[in-house]
Amino acid sequence: MTLKPSVFDPQGRTIVEALGSMGYGAVRDVRQGKYFELDVDAETPAAARTLVTEVADRLLANPVIESYRVEVDGEETSPPVEPGRRRVTRMVTLGD
Amino acid sequence: MTLKPSVFDPQGRTIVEALGSMGYGAVRDVRQGKYFELDVDAETPAAARTLVTEVADRLLANPVIESYRVEVDGEETSPPVEPGRRRVTRMVTLGD
Repeated sequence: MTLKPSVFDPQGRTIVEALGSMGYGAVRDVRQGKYFELDVDAETPAAARTLVTEVADRLLANPVIESYRVEVDGEETSPPVEPGRRRVTRMVTLGD
Repeated sequence: MTLKPSVFDPQGRTIVEALGSMGYGAVRDVRQGKYFELDVDAETPAAARTLVTEVADRLLANPVIESYRVEVDGEETSPPVEPGRRRVTRMVTLGD
């Protein structure tokens, strides 16, 4: 997860400046966020998404300054999975 | 980025336990990592990948306890991009 664009990101700014002084001026902008991989028991990818979204809202993300996105294995844009209940989900908080 | 599996992840463990006490026992495992989005100037997606990999090795990742993966817009598995030099890359450190 990363801070919403309207929130000043001092860590990202510091990284850009450090990289500039190391000769990496081609890196124009950096946004830092948090990443979570969750293994969950769920009958379907949709159920896994519902569960992880609830967990994000209640525990993992700070809705005042962060937004997030969720990826679930087995959904159309993600790798297919073996039959069974265990599903790997990835969550990144991201700017709006 | 997340810790290599051989490295004990107390934050992930704490999240699983907190979720269990909130009724989310279906969340079996959590691995927490860091996420970076970098906007870089590069002629090609391959050049962007080379740049970001170097930046990860030199500044963003700790190779003793973390491994990472890089995604570049315009590579075959990522969204296509408009012509031009500016490329969005995403970096997640991940277990091996």
